[in-house]
Amino acid sequence: MDAPGPDRRREVHDLYKERKKASFTVEELTQVIYWNNEGNAQRKRAFEIASKYPMFDADDVHFLDREDLYEKGLKSATCAAEIAMDVGFDVRGRRSFAAATEVFPNGLGVHKSMFTPTLRGQGSEEQQKYWVPLAENYRIIGSYAQTEIGHGTYVRGIETTAKYDPKTEQFVLHTPTLTATKFWPGGMGKTANYVVLIARLITQGKDYGPHTFIVQLRSLEDHTPLPGITVGDIGPKMGGNAVDNGFLRLDHVRIPRMQMLMKNAQVSLDGQYSLRGSPKLVYGTMVYARATFCRLSGLSLAQGVTIAIRYSAVRRQTQPRPGAEELQLLDYQTQQYKLLPLVAAAYAATFAGDFMLDLYTKSMEEFGKQDFSALPELHATSAGMKALLSDLAATGIETCRRCCGGHGYLAASGLPQLYSDFAPSTTYEGDNLVLYLQTARYLLKCAQRVATGQTLPKGLLYLIEEQDIQISRSSDLTKFDVLVALYEKRARNLIKSVALTYQLNRDKVNDDFDAWNATSVELVSCAKAHCQLFVVKAFIEVAQMKGETFGVRRVLKLLASLYALHGIVEEAGTFLQTEALTPHQMEMAHEQMLELLKSIRPEAVALVDAFAFSDRSLCSVLGRYDGDVYTHLFEWSKNSPLNKKEVLDGYYKYLRPLMKRKSKL
Amino acid sequence: MDAPGPDRRREVHDLYKERKKASFTVEELTQVIYWNNEGNAQRKRAFEIASKYPMFDADDVHFLDREDLYEKGLKSATCAAEIAMDVGFDVRGRRSFAAATEVFPNGLGVHKSMFTPTLRGQGSEEQQKYWVPLAENYRIIGSYAQTEIGHGTYVRGIETTAKYDPKTEQFVLHTPTLTATKFWPGGMGKTANYVVLIARLITQGKDYGPHTFIVQLRSLEDHTPLPGITVGDIGPKMGGNAVDNGFLRLDHVRIPRMQMLMKNAQVSLDGQYSLRGSPKLVYGTMVYARATFCRLSGLSLAQGVTIAIRYSAVRRQTQPRPGAEELQLLDYQTQQYKLLPLVAAAYAATFAGDFMLDLYTKSMEEFGKQDFSALPELHATSAGMKALLSDLAATGIETCRRCCGGHGYLAASGLPQLYSDFAPSTTYEGDNLVLYLQTARYLLKCAQRVATGQTLPKGLLYLIEEQDIQISRSSDLTKFDVLVALYEKRARNLIKSVALTYQLNRDKVNDDFDAWNATSVELVSCAKAHCQLFVVKAFIEVAQMKGETFGVRRVLKLLASLYALHGIVEEAGTFLQTEALTPHQMEMAHEQMLELLKSIRPEAVALVDAFAFSDRSLCSVLGRYDGDVYTHLFEWSKNSPLNKKEVLDGYYKYLRPLMKRKSKL
Ligand SMILES: Cc1cc2nc3c(=O)[nH]c(=O)nc-3n(C[C@H](O)[C@H](O)[C@H](O)COP(=O)(O)OP(=O)(O)OC[C@H]3O[C@@H](n4cnc5c(N)ncnc54)[C@H](O)[C@@H]3O)c2cc1C
Ligand SMILES: Cc1cc2nc3c(=O)[nH]c(=O)nc-3n(C[C@H](O)[C@H](O)[C@H](O)COP(=O)(O)OP(=O)(O)OC[C@H]3O[C@@H](n4cnc5c(N)ncnc54)[C@H](O)[C@@H]3O)c2cc1C
Ligand SMILES: [Ca+2]
Repeated sequence: MDAPGPDRRREVHDLYKERKKASFTVEELTQVIYWNNEGNAQRKRAFEIASKYPMFDADDVHFLDREDLYEKGLKSATCAAEIAMDVGFDVRGRRSFAAATEVFPNGLGVHKSMFTPTLRGQGSEEQQKYWVPLAENYRIIGSYAQTEIGHGTYVRGIETTAKYDPKTEQFVLHTPTLTATKFWPGGMGKTANYVVLIARLITQGKDYGPHTFIVQLRSLEDHTPLPGITVGDIGPKMGGNAVDNGFLRLDHVRIPRMQMLMKNAQVSLDGQYSLRGSPKLVYGTMVYARATFCRLSGLSLAQGVTIAIRYSAVRRQTQPRPGAEELQLLDYQTQQYKLLPLVAAAYAATFAGDFMLDLYTKSMEEFGKQDFSALPELHATSAGMKALLSDLAATGIETCRRCCGGHGYLAASGLPQLYSDFAPSTTYEGDNLVLYLQTARYLLKCAQRVATGQTLPKGLLYLIEEQDIQISRSSDLTKFDVLVALYEKRARNLIKSVALTYQLNRDKVNDDFDAWNATSVELVSCAKAHCQLFVVKAFIEVAQMKGETFGVRRVLKLLASLYALHGIVEEAGTFLQTEALTPHQMEMAHEQMLELLKSIRPEAVALVDAFAFSDRSLCSVLGRYDGDVYTHLFEWSKNSPLNKKEVLDGYYKYLRPLMKRKSKL
Repeated sequence: MDAPGPDRRREVHDLYKERKKASFTVEELTQVIYWNNEGNAQRKRAFEIASKYPMFDADDVHFLDREDLYEKGLKSATCAAEIAMDVGFDVRGRRSFAAATEVFPNGLGVHKSMFTPTLRGQGSEEQQKYWVPLAENYRIIGSYAQTEIGHGTYVRGIETTAKYDPKTEQFVLHTPTLTATKFWPGGMGKTANYVVLIARLITQGKDYGPHTFIVQLRSLEDHTPLPGITVGDIGPKMGGNAVDNGFLRLDHVRIPRMQMLMKNAQVSLDGQYSLRGSPKLVYGTMVYARATFCRLSGLSLAQGVTIAIRYSAVRRQTQPRPGAEELQLLDYQTQQYKLLPLVAAAYAATFAGDFMLDLYTKSMEEFGKQDFSALPELHATSAGMKALLSDLAATGIETCRRCCGGHGYLAASGLPQLYSDFAPSTTYEGDNLVLYLQTARYLLKCAQRVATGQTLPKGLLYLIEEQDIQISRSSDLTKFDVLVALYEKRARNLIKSVALTYQLNRDKVNDDFDAWNATSVELVSCAKAHCQLFVVKAFIEVAQMKGETFGVRRVLKLLASLYALHGIVEEAGTFLQTEALTPHQMEMAHEQMLELLKSIRPEAVALVDAFAFSDRSLCSVLGRYDGDVYTHLFEWSKNSPLNKKEVLDGYYKYLRPLMKRKSKL
């Protein structure tokens, strides 16, 4: 850290004071976030190793044009891959190392997150043995190609075909129409030489729908596309521009039969189709992926609040009274109301992701014993959870940006890129709205089970177990059992009411789909309520379990209460509508929430420090650990590429002729 | 338009069918939007003239790097300026021509929107005579420099000084600290050679606070910065990257006394300070600017919904039942629920802007007679209206983007740029939250007037005039008087309750500012409620007045009802909390809103067509008028700059070494 200069002493000093205010040990909370002492130590080690390599610096990243950005992404990712192999990190270590080195998504992301896992998850044992080491050691680089230009959410609608030709024992892959063009696969545009391709399997004259194939796209020698392959980058995007999302057209491209991934389905030499194994495990994989996604949403939001909270402690605006010093933004109630619940939400999402991972691990043990009973609930809930938490993080990051005023709009703040890189999380791995509807379908079924007296899965027992709720003073509204009971009551009443609406619509229109569609706005709303309940419960469970010292236990409880109470205030509509609270009690909830803001205010900077991001991984002048914001903002600006020349060509080409033009008088 | 090819016939046909469904004449509604037949004809003419110049094409705009984008912006703006001068457009004509030619903000924007108007509004008559023609004829190019790196919202906190030196009859302009660096002025980085500068006026040893000066920054001969001036671009931003927002430091720069703008304040030869004229008119200018801003928010949102609605008519996803064709997105209730209220909101904001402009014009007449009684209300309301409508448009545009799924994330959709260019509207010309608080301060005063029995301004009479509200069936909830009464009741009760809270806090803390701060979250909420009421009333007034034919009148009424009813459902919390509606009535509101969605669905495409954007001004492949989306999406992608070379340098530098590296075994 630089010594504070004359102009910047105040900012640095403000942050220093904030850190002294906190009532708990940051390091202890960091351990809770990164699972435990050991997990945290491992993460620290990864960040320390990363900090030794200047090649991972990303100071200039906002100044690069697309091709340079793409290259920069490849550079960090390939270097990180080599170092990770040399050091010999385990899975978590690799992930931490990636977090420390890859500040933004890059062309190798899908190789790691989709290509390799699909080979592992959908290949037969033999196929895995052959392909997985090639992928893991980066002998081949892959992408994952499912989406087509005309087909996204509805995978069964894809048009790319894979026709089995028993004569040559090959599949013929083909793109029959414009709308069948593969579009979006990450890293496919320029980076990958292989792809996992989803295509309609056709054999013996029958169309078996979407199946998975391995296809080589580019030469291993000179990286040029193979015959029959048209492939390229789809163009610049809102964010993620270091990634070469690609398009792909196949013109009767032939691959050997054994390049269909055959764990769950098989085509024999003569073209006979057969199913194998249990497709249920595929759902298990989805639950795992979504849980990871939830945690990731929490950590992305945590980056946003780290920047906004630190800056709000340093930024001062408006004298509260004549002659007084201008106030730190963090002391405005309105700023607290926007930001502190987001700090709580970052914790909530992180912990809810962990909670789901735990559930998943436990269920896997049961699956081992062929007991799949927990799967449907877990699967349904995880869909909506991904939607809820990625929405929350996306909206939250943008709120953080706006809370930084004009400077939040500058690339230097790191927030525009954080937002635009994170934004597609609400669309990929399942469009959020469609995911909510999946959760809702399950909830509707459960409601119908209640009506017909059938048993319910554990997580849905609240549909029949009504709690008595006692609220006589506003402090009752911070009691965990009260909060959970309120969320339960709201969800229960919404679900009951949607079941009724659906039935009415069903009777009226006499068609399942039309009735579903006519109920869908309400269905989404009850799926949200169910998932919010889940997060509240998960957070409360963590808050009650974790923390060695009083300080950390206290602050976790404050955050859990704030998360829950803020949710009630923000969604007052459904809580009042379902009569979970009276208007008077809602007023108390509002007051109590304001009290919580006051209690958490002095802990704010320490709470974001606990996420332990490095300055490099935040990539934000406003979010600097040392608070020395203005000095570095001005330095950053001076480096703007437009400043390389004092007078730009545009002056000679356009401005000067306009200013000097002859008057037409 | 191309003839439809085999793959794209469906999309083109779908849009054709949508247009046939509409029950009203698009052209007639367009006239309502652009004020009347004449206004519309004038706008059409501007678009037609623009369409003749291929130099305004913006097809490649998403592929440009920053410097090229900056140049492109200058090119269109300077050409448009020359043509506009040659054609001799009036003010509105110029504005339409700009809308037709300047697809994104550029380096000349602040010259037109801030520099020239400030000369006109704050210069003495003599100063205006000298400076305004120079600016209007682009003999000089200016910017507007108020914000400093450490000072934004709180203008009185700025540090730049202008010390009067009676010996030389000059002001000495100086930047005393790092935080005093001017930061953000649009076009100042590289384009402007002049600037209107806000600095603290110091004369005869006294600091008179912020005043306005004209300062030359760059040579009129070679555009290099003058001595004592350090100026440059602040760097890349989330959007608006064709604009060179700038930084500026002044090192004892001297300007003649007559370059202080002297309409409202004066410094004499010997340094005597005096006030002149009425500062009230400055407020009038602000009302005008904000009203224009509201209309602009409406039109920006209209661009977003034009794209999303057209694409939703063309995009199909998911078979409703086996064998059926996939459904148009526009037929999903959830998609309607997201998009149709935004169509209504685009109309609402546009009309509310007009409504405010009318009020402003009427008040100006009264001001002429020295009657300023309407000003405080107009000023207070316009602050919150700017906040409400720019928030609405920003959030709405992003919803439009997400409703387009993955393709919405591609620059080709036009939506990322629309969002990122529009986003700062929530920050500049007054941060929205701060503006709400301004409105709230006025409302609080009015509530206090009620308590002490004083009279109220016209727009606030609803605080004392309670209406009886009759709702017995759900169709009652589309009646305009009922809707207005509900919004009034909510606002009234919120304002009364905030006055109470403020008083309680005031009694408790015994300090004005602390009491204010402790009430501020509630204050913002009542300012919103007041402004929403204003928009609802404005929209209803237009809906009742405009439209020659039954078709247009009907659809305007449907939209006004939807806007109001959707607001009630979305903000159910405060409507229930204030007991404007019972939970049962809220359920009816929800049902009635769903009915409205159904009625408006067939009009959707025609409703966005009525805004009459050209394909060029939308700059969106998804929003094409002809619906031929997929063909052009693929063509656009093929032109991605990354596709210029088949194999990129990154392959040789990073990928190949990784793939071919020697195994360490
Ligand atoms: C950055 C990014 C990276 C990607 N990477 C990959 C990749 O590596 N590989 C790959 O194969 N794909 C990838 N994709 C594509 C991604 O999987 C799809 O965008 C996603 O599945 C959504 O599909 P869509 O874009 O077709 O949206 P659509 O399905 O067209 O959805 C558009 C709108 O319609 C609504 N909608 C759709 N269906 C229904 C329904 N049944 N009921 C109600 N509403 C509905 C949605 O809510 C949404 O608002 C990527 C996308 C992005 C943006
Ligand atoms: C694209 C763009 C173009 C611009 N162009 C120009 C230009 O041409 N000329 C120019 O002079 N300036 C320009 N600006 C600067 C702009 O005017 C300021 O950004 C704006 O005034 C807000 O000030 P700020 O950025 O300092 O935010 P801040 O005042 O620092 O606000 C940050 C946060 O604090 C909150 N806050 C601040 N004060 C209070 C309070 N009293 N009570 C409660 N909360 C508060 C705000 O709500 C916000 O969330 C531009 C900015 C942008 C983004
Ligand atoms: Ca370049």
